[in-house]
Amino acid sequence: MSVPQRLSFVTIGVRDAARSRAFYAGWGWQERPGGSDDFAQFDVGTTRLALFPLDRLASEAAPDADLPAPGTWNGITLAVNVAARGDVDQVHAAAAMAGARVVTAPVDREWGGRSGYVADPDGTRWEVAWLPGLLPG
Amino acid sequence: MSVPQRLSFVTIGVRDAARSRAFYAGWGWQERPGGSDDFAQFDVGTTRLALFPLDRLASEAAPDADLPAPGTWNGITLAVNVAARGDVDQVHAAAAMAGARVVTAPVDREWGGRSGYVADPDGTRWEVAWLPGLLPG
Repeated sequence: MSVPQRLSFVTIGVRDAARSRAFYAGWGWQERPGGSDDFAQFDVGTTRLALFPLDRLASEAAPDADLPAPGTWNGITLAVNVAARGDVDQVHAAAAMAGARVVTAPVDREWGGRSGYVADPDGTRWEVAWLPGLLPG
Repeated sequence: MSVPQRLSFVTIGVRDAARSRAFYAGWGWQERPGGSDDFAQFDVGTTRLALFPLDRLASEAAPDADLPAPGTWNGITLAVNVAARGDVDQVHAAAAMAGARVVTAPVDREWGGRSGYVADPDGTRWEVAWLPGLLPG
């Protein structure tokens, strides 16, 4: 048996579940029914984005490691691509208006697109990106 | 304009692109054409998993933050769900045989399923999971 090429869940370990749930709701994201005080999930294409308390996720996924320090970047980025170059700035601004922290303003990239970054309450980086002719997700 | 509920890319900042590319190839994952020495992408459902050098990703996504320290957990987990309880142990073992570091052996979870964790070369946590009646991705 091999490892299926599949991404079923991306789970973000959150320091304050209510705060994070409100954050994504503020983006207009629709939570799946069946959540609890400490678990929320959102359909993002075929994958689900889940929020789960950081300490509980750590006890499963990193029982022998330190918790990530607040304010550090975790080495991963998540991206919301948009259909048009001009949408990058508008969606980036909308994400910030709804409570995201602006990390970098949108700029044209050497790889041919345009993107900018914001962060969720735990510092998870979200890239709002446009690439010509490409809209995965 | 709001923020589309979409996950276009999950990008892992990697310390050694060749090592990480070989790691996922070892899982049997098929890379999309068009990659380069320092960029690889894999279709995982509607989302793409991308590998990009950590320092270059940091310059875009976290220009003012320290790089994550090697060996630390980053607060996020990625999951490959499987169709049957018994598949968890087999896929977990296959992932390890192909070079993943075992973080935790599969166990039955209080939330009703079974799962275990492995880590990729940069410590990214992958959960091999089964949940009754649920196979997103």
